[in-house]
Amino acid sequence: MPHGPFRLAEIVARFGGELVGDQDVVVRQVGTLAGAGPGELSFLTHPKYRSELAATRASAVIVPASERGATVLPRIVCRDPYAYFARVSTLFNPPPPSVPGVHRTAVIAPEAHVASSASVGPACVVERGARIGEGVALEAGCVVGAEATIDRDSRLHPHVTIGTRCVVGARAVLHAGAVIGADGFGFAPEGGEWIKIPQVGRVVIGSDVEIGANTTIDRGAIDDTVIEDGVKIDNQVQIGHNCRIGAHTAIAGCVGIAGSTRIGRHCLIGGAAMIGGHLEIADRVVITASSGVSKSIPAAGVYSGALPAMDARAWRRTLAQLRNLERLAERIRELERRLANLERPR
Amino acid sequence: MPHGPFRLAEIVARFGGELVGDQDVVVRQVGTLAGAGPGELSFLTHPKYRSELAATRASAVIVPASERGATVLPRIVCRDPYAYFARVSTLFNPPPPSVPGVHRTAVIAPEAHVASSASVGPACVVERGARIGEGVALEAGCVVGAEATIDRDSRLHPHVTIGTRCVVGARAVLHAGAVIGADGFGFAPEGGEWIKIPQVGRVVIGSDVEIGANTTIDRGAIDDTVIEDGVKIDNQVQIGHNCRIGAHTAIAGCVGIAGSTRIGRHCLIGGAAMIGGHLEIADRVVITASSGVSKSIPAAGVYSGALPAMDARAWRRTLAQLRNLERLAERIRELERRLANLERPR
Amino acid sequence: MPHGPFRLAEIVARFGGELVGDQDVVVRQVGTLAGAGPGELSFLTHPKYRSELAATRASAVIVPASERGATVLPRIVCRDPYAYFARVSTLFNPPPPSVPGVHRTAVIAPEAHVASSASVGPACVVERGARIGEGVALEAGCVVGAEATIDRDSRLHPHVTIGTRCVVGARAVLHAGAVIGADGFGFAPEGGEWIKIPQVGRVVIGSDVEIGANTTIDRGAIDDTVIEDGVKIDNQVQIGHNCRIGAHTAIAGCVGIAGSTRIGRHCLIGGAAMIGGHLEIADRVVITASSGVSKSIPAAGVYSGALPAMDARAWRRTLAQLRNLERLAERIRELERRLANLERPR
Repeated sequence: MPHGPFRLAEIVARFGGELVGDQDVVVRQVGTLAGAGPGELSFLTHPKYRSELAATRASAVIVPASERGATVLPRIVCRDPYAYFARVSTLFNPPPPSVPGVHRTAVIAPEAHVASSASVGPACVVERGARIGEGVALEAGCVVGAEATIDRDSRLHPHVTIGTRCVVGARAVLHAGAVIGADGFGFAPEGGEWIKIPQVGRVVIGSDVEIGANTTIDRGAIDDTVIEDGVKIDNQVQIGHNCRIGAHTAIAGCVGIAGSTRIGRHCLIGGAAMIGGHLEIADRVVITASSGVSKSIPAAGVYSGALPAMDARAWRRTLAQLRNLERLAERIRELERRLANLERPR
Repeated sequence: MPHGPFRLAEIVARFGGELVGDQDVVVRQVGTLAGAGPGELSFLTHPKYRSELAATRASAVIVPASERGATVLPRIVCRDPYAYFARVSTLFNPPPPSVPGVHRTAVIAPEAHVASSASVGPACVVERGARIGEGVALEAGCVVGAEATIDRDSRLHPHVTIGTRCVVGARAVLHAGAVIGADGFGFAPEGGEWIKIPQVGRVVIGSDVEIGANTTIDRGAIDDTVIEDGVKIDNQVQIGHNCRIGAHTAIAGCVGIAGSTRIGRHCLIGGAAMIGGHLEIADRVVITASSGVSKSIPAAGVYSGALPAMDARAWRRTLAQLRNLERLAERIRELERRLANLERPR
Repeated sequence: MPHGPFRLAEIVARFGGELVGDQDVVVRQVGTLAGAGPGELSFLTHPKYRSELAATRASAVIVPASERGATVLPRIVCRDPYAYFARVSTLFNPPPPSVPGVHRTAVIAPEAHVASSASVGPACVVERGARIGEGVALEAGCVVGAEATIDRDSRLHPHVTIGTRCVVGARAVLHAGAVIGADGFGFAPEGGEWIKIPQVGRVVIGSDVEIGANTTIDRGAIDDTVIEDGVKIDNQVQIGHNCRIGAHTAIAGCVGIAGSTRIGRHCLIGGAAMIGGHLEIADRVVITASSGVSKSIPAAGVYSGALPAMDARAWRRTLAQLRNLERLAERIRELERRLANLERPR
C-alpha cells in the first residue's frame, strides 16, 4: 500500500535539502540506481556508484553536495543522502495501517487491558493482567503473557511471544517468532545433576527498539534483562539473562550474547559475533562479524578475530603450521642460541 | 502411515537396477545395515561398511556394482545406491496425505483464494489477497500474509510465517517456525540514532525448495530476495535481504548469510558457515563447516577456515604463540640479518 | 505468584544446613547480594564477593562453611550455597499453577488422549493419536503432532511444535518456539539435484529435560534422535538427526550439533560451539564456548579452539602473519641450514 505520488517540491518542503532541476517531477516510489525506472527516486551515497548514476533510469536522485554536478537529472542535494532516502522511503511506504479492534478468534483474558485503538489479530492470546497500549498492533498468533505490557504504537508480527511481566516500550517492532522472556539458562550442579534456578527477573525493552525474527531475549534470573531505547537487533540473535544492551546499539544477525554481559551505547555488533558472559563492553565499540569476545572491552574501538576462509588445501597446510607453532618458536630460540655462540669472539 | 509392502521385483520394475536373488522377497520398510530386521531393505554406499553388510539382518540390500558379490542376500545392484534408497524410502514413506478443506478454526480473509484441493489446518490465518494453490497443505498455526502466494503441492509445517507479497513455488517444504519475509535489517544512521529503511522487496522462492525449522529469510529492501529452484536449506539458517541463492545449492544448519550476497548454483555450504554481505560466490563452491567468508569467491573449489578444538591447555599455548606471531617474524628477520653478517667473507 | 514468606527456621527444617543467628527472621524472596533488600535472602558462592556480602541489605544469607564468620547477618551455613539457593528460590517461586482443562479454542482430535489433570491453553492443537499426560501444561498455541506423547507434569511454553510420533518425557520444560521433530536434513544427490530422503525416525526425549526457546531437534532419518534424562539445552540450539545426547549434559545457547553425533553424559558444551557430524564425544567432556569440533573426542577433558577478538589493526597484522606461516617455517628451515653450514668445522 504505497503512499503518494509526490512532486519533488513537496518532498523538499517536507524533508529539506536543495532541489536542482524540475521541481514538478512526480515520483511514486524509491529504487536503486540500477533498478529504478521512470517515476522512481533513487539515491547516491558514494562516488564509486557514479557509473550507476550515469546509467540510471530513475526520474530523480538524492545526492550529496559533493556530487551536485554528477548528473543532469532533477536532484535533491543534501548532507546525508542515505538518511534522506530512508525518510522518503518511509513517506512512500508507511507501515501497514492496522484496524483497531480485537479479532473474534483472539483470546483476551478478562483481567487484561487492551486499548481501544489497539489491533489484536486472529489467534492472538493476551493473558491475565497484560496491558496492550494505544495504537499497538498484534499480528496473527501473538501471545502476550500475564501482566506483560506493550506500550503505544508497537507492532508485533506473527507468532511473537512476550513472557509474563515483560515490558515492551513504545514504537517497538518485533518480527515473527521472536521470544521475549523465556527462562534464562540457570542451573546449579549437584551430584552430577542440575537443579533449575527459577528465573524471576523480567525483560524490559525501551522505546523505538526493533527485534528480528526468531530472536530470543531471556528474562533475568533475579534482576531484569534490559534493552535500552533505540536498540536494533536482527534475526536469530540470542541474548542471555541479565544482559543490558545500551541505547542505540545495533546487533546484526546470528549474534549470541551470554548472560550478565553489559554492552554500551552506540555499539555495532557484526553478524555471528559471539560475546561471552559477565563482560563489560564500553560505549561505541565495534565488533566485526564472526568475532568472539571473551574479555571485557573497556575502550571504544574496532575489535576483530575472525578467520577468513581460503582454499581448503592452503588452509590445511596453514593449520598444520599453526598446530606446530610452539615447536616453531622453540626452533627460533635454538637458532638464537646457536647464533649467539657463533658470534661470540673466540 | 507407511505404504507397502512390496516384492523386490516390484521395486526393480519401478526404479530399475538389477535384481540378484529371490525376486519374491517382500519388504515393507527401509533400515540401516545395523538396525534393519527381517522385512526390511537396507543399502550399502561404501566398501567401509562391508562388515555391517556381513552382519545385517535385513531381508535384502541395495548395493553398487562393485559390491555385487559382497553378500549372498537378495540384492538390487544399481549405479547409485543412496539415490536408489531415497526413492525406495519415499515409496514406503510417502508424505502424509492432507485432507482438502479449511479447518473451522482457520481464518481466511474474504479476499483470499484457497484452492479447493488445498488443506488449511487449525488456527491458520490467510490474509487478504493471498493465494493458496492446489494440493497445498498448511499445517496448524501457519500465517500467510496479504497478497502472498503458495504454489501447488507445497507443505507448510506448523507455525510457518509467510510475509506480505512473498512467493513460495511449487512442491516446497517449509518446516515449523520458518519465517519468510520478515524485514531486512536496514537502518540509516543519523545523529547517533537509526532511521528505519522500509523493506519493500519480497522473498521469491522457486520450485522444489526445502526450508528448515526456525530458518529466517528476509524480504529485500527494494528489490527481492530470491531462492532459486531446488535449493535445500536446513534449520536455523539466516538469509539477509536481497540475497540470491542459486539453484540446487544446499545450505546446512546454523548458516548465516548477510545481505545482498549472491551464491551460485550447486554450492554446498557447511553448517555454521558465516558469509558476509555484498559478496559473489561462484557456482559449485563448497564451503566447509564453520568457515567464515568475507570476500567474494570467483571460482569453484573447496574453501575452509575453521579451527578445530584441541586440548584446552595446548590451545592456550598455541594462542599465546599466535598473538606473538609478529614478534616471532621479527626474530626471524633479526636472525637472517645476523646470519648474513656472519656469512660475509672477512 | 511468589510463595511464602518463611522463617529461616522453616527453610532449614526443609532443606538442611546450619542456622546461625536469629531463626525467626522472615524472608519472602531471594536476591543478589548487591540487589537484595530487607526481607530477602541472598547467597555467597565465592570469597571474591565478600565485599558485596559486607554491603548487602539482605536480611539473611546462605554461605559455605568457609565463610561462616564472614558476616554477622543471620545465615544458613551449608556445603553448596548455590544449589541451596536454587532450592530456596524454587520454594519462593514455584512454577505457575496450571488450571486443568482444555481451552475452548484448543483443537483436540477425537482420537487424541488428554489426561484430566492436563491443561491445554488457547489455540493449541493436539493431533490424532497424541497423548497428553497427567499434569502437563500446554501454553498458548502449542502443536502436538499425530501419535506424539507428552509425559506427566511437562510444560510446553507458547508456540512449541512437537512432531508426529515424537516422545517427550516427564517433567520436561520446553520454551517458546522450540521445534521437536522437524525433518532431518537428508538428501541424496543425483544429477546435480537432490532427492529427499524421508525422515522416518522420531525424537525421543527423556525425563527432566529442559529445551530452550527456538531450539530445534530433528527427527532421525531411520532410527531415532535421542535426548537422555536430565539434559539441559539453552536457546537456539540445533541438533541434527540421529544424534544422541547423554544424560545430564548441558548445552549452552547457539550450539549446533550435526547429524549422527553422539555426545556422552555429564558433558558441558559452551555457547556457540559447533560440533560436526558422525562424531563420538566421551562422557564428561567440556567444550568451551565458540569452539569447533571436527573429530571425535575419546577422553574426558577440556577442549578449546576459539579465537578471542583483539584490536582490529593488530588482528589484521596477526592474520597476515598467519597466512604467511608456511613461508615463515621455510625461512626457519633455511636459517637452520645456513647455520649448520657455518657451524661445520673448516
